[in-house]
Amino acid sequence: MLGQTDSSSSECEDIIIEGGILLSMVDGQLPLKNVSIVIRGESIADIRVRDPKSPRPRNAQIIDARETIIMPGLVNAHGHTAMTLFRGLADDVPLKEWLFEKIFPAEAKHLKKETVYWGSLLGCVEMIASGTTTVSDGYFFQDATAEAFDRAGMRALVAQGVIDFPAPGVPDPRENLKAGKGFIEKWLHFSDRIRPGLFCHSLTTCSESTLRGAMEISEEFSLPLQMHLSETSQEVNEVFLNTGRRPAFYLHDIGVANDHLIAVHAVHLDEPEMHLLAERKTRIVHVPESNMKLASGAAKTSQMLKMGLKVALGTDGCASNNNLDLFQEMGTAAKLDKVFTSNPVNMDAATVLKMATVWGAEVLGLERDIGTIEIGKKADIIIIDLEKPHLVPLYNPFSTLVYSANGADVRDVIINGRILMRDRKFQTIDTDEIMAEVKSISERIKRTSLC
Amino acid sequence: MLGQTDSSSSECEDIIIEGGILLSMVDGQLPLKNVSIVIRGESIADIRVRDPKSPRPRNAQIIDARETIIMPGLVNAHGHTAMTLFRGLADDVPLKEWLFEKIFPAEAKHLKKETVYWGSLLGCVEMIASGTTTVSDGYFFQDATAEAFDRAGMRALVAQGVIDFPAPGVPDPRENLKAGKGFIEKWLHFSDRIRPGLFCHSLTTCSESTLRGAMEISEEFSLPLQMHLSETSQEVNEVFLNTGRRPAFYLHDIGVANDHLIAVHAVHLDEPEMHLLAERKTRIVHVPESNMKLASGAAKTSQMLKMGLKVALGTDGCASNNNLDLFQEMGTAAKLDKVFTSNPVNMDAATVLKMATVWGAEVLGLERDIGTIEIGKKADIIIIDLEKPHLVPLYNPFSTLVYSANGADVRDVIINGRILMRDRKFQTIDTDEIMAEVKSISERIKRTSLC
Repeated sequence: MLGQTDSSSSECEDIIIEGGILLSMVDGQLPLKNVSIVIRGESIADIRVRDPKSPRPRNAQIIDARETIIMPGLVNAHGHTAMTLFRGLADDVPLKEWLFEKIFPAEAKHLKKETVYWGSLLGCVEMIASGTTTVSDGYFFQDATAEAFDRAGMRALVAQGVIDFPAPGVPDPRENLKAGKGFIEKWLHFSDRIRPGLFCHSLTTCSESTLRGAMEISEEFSLPLQMHLSETSQEVNEVFLNTGRRPAFYLHDIGVANDHLIAVHAVHLDEPEMHLLAERKTRIVHVPESNMKLASGAAKTSQMLKMGLKVALGTDGCASNNNLDLFQEMGTAAKLDKVFTSNPVNMDAATVLKMATVWGAEVLGLERDIGTIEIGKKADIIIIDLEKPHLVPLYNPFSTLVYSANGADVRDVIINGRILMRDRKFQTIDTDEIMAEVKSISERIKRTSLC
Repeated sequence: MLGQTDSSSSECEDIIIEGGILLSMVDGQLPLKNVSIVIRGESIADIRVRDPKSPRPRNAQIIDARETIIMPGLVNAHGHTAMTLFRGLADDVPLKEWLFEKIFPAEAKHLKKETVYWGSLLGCVEMIASGTTTVSDGYFFQDATAEAFDRAGMRALVAQGVIDFPAPGVPDPRENLKAGKGFIEKWLHFSDRIRPGLFCHSLTTCSESTLRGAMEISEEFSLPLQMHLSETSQEVNEVFLNTGRRPAFYLHDIGVANDHLIAVHAVHLDEPEMHLLAERKTRIVHVPESNMKLASGAAKTSQMLKMGLKVALGTDGCASNNNLDLFQEMGTAAKLDKVFTSNPVNMDAATVLKMATVWGAEVLGLERDIGTIEIGKKADIIIIDLEKPHLVPLYNPFSTLVYSANGADVRDVIINGRILMRDRKFQTIDTDEIMAEVKSISERIKRTSLC
C-alpha cells in the first residue's frame, strides 16, 4: 500500500480559485473579497483580487468560489484516528471503566495492522469531509496509519505510541523506544506530507527513562514529541504522589519540558506550571469536547494564551468525542472558555480560528508549509459554501465559521495542490469501500464486546 | 399570507416509510429494526416490522429508509426565530453591551412585520433542514412569525412578547397584555399546528402586575406562559434586591409558579428553588449553547432531572448561539453537564434525546400530538442518513445521534403528515427566495450598525 504519493501533482494543470472571500489567516490581513488564487503543483503560486479581464493560463482548472469563504485547511492537532472503530462503543460511563473495561480491552483484542488501516482511512474521509487537511495522530500500528494517510492524501504528523505496558503491535514494553525509533527511521524521508514522530501516552504510564528516551530520539531527529499531560485531576495527584512535584515541574526536572514537547489536554495546569511551560516554549493542544465528555475539566485556554503559550486545537479520538469535526470543536472551544471564565469576551471567533489553522501549524512545526494562505506555501485550502440557511446573513466571516458553520458546510478540499473533495464529492477516495470495511470490522467488535 | 394551512393533506395518498431503525422514543421501547410506518393524512396510521410480502396500499408514496434512523421530529422548546436577522452581528462582547448597545437597538430599528416574517422563515428553513419540526417562539410582531411558521409548515407555539418597555410592535407598554390577549384570540382557532401564547421577557423587565396578568390570560386560555428565568447571576441579585426573595420564590409568592409556567434558562436556581418548581410542576427549558456563549453559566440539568423537574431543550435566538441545530445542542447539553458535575455518567445520550423529543412535547403541552412515534399521533418524523463517514460504525443509535450526528445528517422531514424535505431538498419552500430576502434586510442592518 506504500508509494501512493502525489508526486505527479506538479505535472498537472494549474488550479484557479475564483471569487469568494479569502481568510488568509495571515496576521493583520483583513478578509479579502473576490479573489483569484492560482495553485501550481503543490503550492500557492499567486493571490490577487480577481480581474475578469486578465487572461487565464491555458489548461487551468477553474473552481468557481463565489458565495464562499476560502481559507486554510484546518489542523487537527491531536487525534487517535483509527479510534473511529470504537466510535459510540462505550459512552456515558465512568472514566476508569471507560478506559480499563471498554477501550483498552477493545484495543487489545481488535487493533491490528488491517483494522488500524481501515479505521484511519475512515477518519481521513471524515476529516477531509469536514475541512481538516492536517492531523497529528498518536496511536499504535502506525505503519498502517501512515499508509492510510498517504493513500487518503492527508497531511499528517504520525506518532508511534510509547507506553510502558504491552501495547498493540509492541507486546514487549522494553522495545517501545526501539520500535518508535524504527518507525521514525522508516518514514522520515518518505514524503513531505507524512512526517513521523513519537507519542508518549502519559506521565502515569511512561517511566522517567521512557520519557527521557523519547525526548532524546525526538531531539535527535528534530521532531516534536506528543504527550497527554494533566488530563485529569487524578493523574495530577498520582504524579504528585510518585514524584513530589506537579506534572509540568516533573517534566522540567527530567529535561522533557522544552520546545519539542506538545502537551495535549493540559486541563489541570496551575499558574506556575503555565508560566514554566510558556517559558520553556512547550506547545499546547486543547481538546475541549473530549475533556467535557469524559468530565475531565476545562483547560484554561484564554489564560494560557494571555501567558504566551501557543495553543492548538484537536478532536482527540472518536471514542471520546465522538466525531472529528473541527468546526464544532471551534464553537465548543470558544463557548467552554467563556462559560468557565464567566467572560463572553474571551476566546473570540478570530482567536479560535487561529488555533485551528495558523497556530495549529506552528504547534506541529509545520508553519513554513501550511497554516495560512500565502504565495509559496503548500496549497492546503478549503472552501466553505455560504449558500446555506444557517450561514445567512453574513456580518462577520469569523463568527460565521466558528459559531454557525459545521463540517458539512465545507464544499471543496485541496491538500498539497490536489483536489480531494469537490462539491462534497470525493475525487480520489472510494468512501463506500472504506465504510463497508469498517462496518465489517465493527460487526466483529460487537460480537465480542459488552455493548 | 394567512390561510396557507395544509388541510388538504388528509386527502393525499398514504406515505409509507420502509426499512431503517425506529427510535419511537416511547418509554421502554427498544430500537426496532426494519420497520414499516404508514402515514395517513396528518397522522401515523400503522407501525410494524416490515414484511416484504404484505401488499402495499394503492397509490402509497414509499420512502426507502434503509440505512437510516427514523425518529420523532425534534422539539426546539425555546427560540426567538426571527433573530436569524442578527446572526453574527455582535459576538464576543460583554453581555450588557451585547444586549443594550447591539441587540436592543438593532431590534428597535429593524424589526417590523416584514423583517420578522422573512427572518422567521429563514429560521424555519434552518430548523427543518436540521430536523426540528416543532418550535416554541417568543418574540414581537408575532402575527408575522405565525404566518411564516404556517407557510413553512412548521408546528409551533408562538408567544407574543410582553415587556414593560416600549417594544417592537407594542410602543405603549400599558398595552402589552392587551396586545398579547388580542394575539391569542386571533390565532387560537386558526390551526392545530400553530398555537398562540404569551412570553414574559423576564422578572427584571416585567412588573408583578404584568407577570400576574400574563398568567391570568394564560390560565384563561389554558396555554403555557414562557418566561426567561434566572439566566444570569446579576438578574438573580436584582430580583433579590427588589423583592427580598430569590426569583422562583418571588414567582411562587405572586402566584405565577405553576404548571402553566415554562421557565427558560434556569441557570442560577438554587436547590430550594428547584424543589419549589418541581413541586409546582413548572417546566424548564435548557439552552446550553446560548448560556455558554453569553457566559451566563451552566444550568444544573442532571440535578433538576433527579429532582423530578421536566426539562426540554432549546436553542435560544441566533444572536446568542448562532445556529438552530438541535443535534449540536444535544451534544453540548450532554457534555456541558458532565464537565460541570465532573461526572461522565450524567446526561447520557438517551436522556438528552428525550429532552429534545418527548419531554420537549410535554413541556410545551403538545404530548398528545407529538414527541413520540406512535399510532394515532401526528406524523412529525425525521429520517437520519447513516451512510456518512462520521456515523460509521453504529454501536448505539442514541450515542450516534447525540455525539456524532449534526443537523446536516437529516435526510427527510415530515411535519403533520406532509413531506417538507426529501433527500435534503425542500419540497414546498423556496429557500433561495428566503435567503435573498434576508440578505437584502441584512444589507440595511449593516449600513446602520457598528459591526
